[in-house]
Amino acid sequence: MLNFTVGPVMSDDIIRAIGAEQVPYFRTSEFSNLMLENENLIKKFANTTDDSRVVFLTCSGSGGMETAIMNCLSKNDKALVINGGSFGERFVQLLSLHGIPFTEIKLKHGKALRPENLKPFENKGYTAFLFQKHETSTGVHYDSELISNFCKRNNCFMIVDAISSFLADPFDMKSLNAGVMITGSQKALACPPGIAVMVLSPSALERIEKAQCCCQYFDLKIALKNQDRGQTPWTPAVSVLRQINARLKEIDAKGGAQVEIERTAKLASYFRNKLKEKELPFEVISESLSNAVTPLHPTTQSAYQIFLKIKDEYGIWICPNGGDMKDEVFRVGHIGALKETDYDCLINAFVDLKEKHFI
Amino acid sequence: MLNFTVGPVMSDDIIRAIGAEQVPYFRTSEFSNLMLENENLIKKFANTTDDSRVVFLTCSGSGGMETAIMNCLSKNDKALVINGGSFGERFVQLLSLHGIPFTEIKLKHGKALRPENLKPFENKGYTAFLFQKHETSTGVHYDSELISNFCKRNNCFMIVDAISSFLADPFDMKSLNAGVMITGSQKALACPPGIAVMVLSPSALERIEKAQCCCQYFDLKIALKNQDRGQTPWTPAVSVLRQINARLKEIDAKGGAQVEIERTAKLASYFRNKLKEKELPFEVISESLSNAVTPLHPTTQSAYQIFLKIKDEYGIWICPNGGDMKDEVFRVGHIGALKETDYDCLINAFVDLKEKHFI
Repeated sequence: MLNFTVGPVMSDDIIRAIGAEQVPYFRTSEFSNLMLENENLIKKFANTTDDSRVVFLTCSGSGGMETAIMNCLSKNDKALVINGGSFGERFVQLLSLHGIPFTEIKLKHGKALRPENLKPFENKGYTAFLFQKHETSTGVHYDSELISNFCKRNNCFMIVDAISSFLADPFDMKSLNAGVMITGSQKALACPPGIAVMVLSPSALERIEKAQCCCQYFDLKIALKNQDRGQTPWTPAVSVLRQINARLKEIDAKGGAQVEIERTAKLASYFRNKLKEKELPFEVISESLSNAVTPLHPTTQSAYQIFLKIKDEYGIWICPNGGDMKDEVFRVGHIGALKETDYDCLINAFVDLKEKHFI
Repeated sequence: MLNFTVGPVMSDDIIRAIGAEQVPYFRTSEFSNLMLENENLIKKFANTTDDSRVVFLTCSGSGGMETAIMNCLSKNDKALVINGGSFGERFVQLLSLHGIPFTEIKLKHGKALRPENLKPFENKGYTAFLFQKHETSTGVHYDSELISNFCKRNNCFMIVDAISSFLADPFDMKSLNAGVMITGSQKALACPPGIAVMVLSPSALERIEKAQCCCQYFDLKIALKNQDRGQTPWTPAVSVLRQINARLKEIDAKGGAQVEIERTAKLASYFRNKLKEKELPFEVISESLSNAVTPLHPTTQSAYQIFLKIKDEYGIWICPNGGDMKDEVFRVGHIGALKETDYDCLINAFVDLKEKHFI
């Protein structure tokens, strides 16, 4: 099956070969060295300050989002959160559950963030800002510079969900002055799911030190203490961490994050150009695209029916949407071990469906 | 490397081959069917009532332990907990963190549970009982029947950590009247780490329904609702869940849990007999052994030095202990894809170390 979803994505042969190896025992200096190497390469690719830290949690990206809130925010904060899709909505739920006072900036599906969206909140005592760098559900890539400048002016602690965007779009932790960045193993890292990666700035470390986390498993004080020596408090997804290591070294050898981002951008534009060229009945629904995904509204058929048809008759996964968007939107991802000829297969399938009047 | 630790353990070729496959997209009926099959086979092997449920969480076994406490206990409970090693100690920490009133039954490392340990707590209003079926850190297999009878007399809700024991020692959820049983993917299931399995009785489901879980990621109400249709609320460790599926079907095809338990018991006694036969300077430190592991105190050398020596010079992992037990105890596991000839290799390495006067 060809996989154009936004996670789990296709892995290359090196990563898959590690999946076939016996999983090693991990309370060893060998595994500790690998984990410290993972921390350093993530810091390099996220362009953090030297005194930033990285921890690897065995959970989904959503677990990482909740961990950030539980460890870095308190009832004394006043948070702003962008809600432009399912993942913004998840931040809203999590802030409610954990009793963090917040204001929601609700954006219509597909809409970019504009300066006027932030204006009403200047100098209103906000202390934290949460957003998706890329709202994966609608394929909207928010303007991080705009948010970062707001946060600098207003002294807001910034929590960035870059789960589907890290290594697909440029990200500079230092220049953005971000507090926390979250990503996951099954997105542009192109490894199996199971690991959330959290990048923590010195300001985050300060907040973590003061916090009383309500959940031991997600307590970053414990995670950080263990990562000091390249370990985790609980048995981690060892095989995924070894795959992440191989993948990070591979990216490094090929020239680093920038080269990987350019490769992804090239694939995205290859696909987007083909869409136009073939005059397919799909509308791009996002005002501000990430390189990670192209969100499409099909004008002649249910999006979900197209997902099923393409899966069952062509052996290709595109990414369906859930909830309200189920029949309206599907997405085509550009992360993972994909190449231009893979997009030719997908485009051919769409063209075939058009010729058969299914779309 | 030959791996005799208690997790991650060796996986067989079928499981490893799945690790090399591309990870499929999972919001599909194909994956839902696999998850429902996983639920049914776990229920079968744990001998649950028909109306029991199983959920699969992407986390370590410790995450499962905390999830049980967060979702099934409250400040209105009065819990008893056995603390005979590191994992009993973890239950104690978790009960403290979550504000559950409890009394600790502290047992010396290596000691079995006896009726007199429970006697003082009869008719004292206890409502819950937490224990390790097998305290993995010291290799003590507690008498589940004894605890079950206490719980039946005293109407206690029973939370059983069977993480390293399930499929290695007999377990009968129905006859024990257990409330919750927890296990992990990297123990006798012999898959990579990343998944905790939770088996929930109707009494657990009732408690979950009433509870207010403080952590969304571990909220079993949400997990159960998703598992109704064979799904998970957050992206799970899809590859491990597919490996668990293959492994469960393999066990089923070979005759079920009983056959797998007998296979493990045979390996354990093969190793234990060889130890005696070769007169190795190791004392078994547990009064009540599980089939999963043999805990040993070496009388002539530091346990940790033996672990390092065997790893670096013979390419074999035995399982070191941490904390106080670091120099006193190492363990040899009997779970995973091991066979008698593997134990011959280990015994030969020990004999060699004895001849070289290292032990």
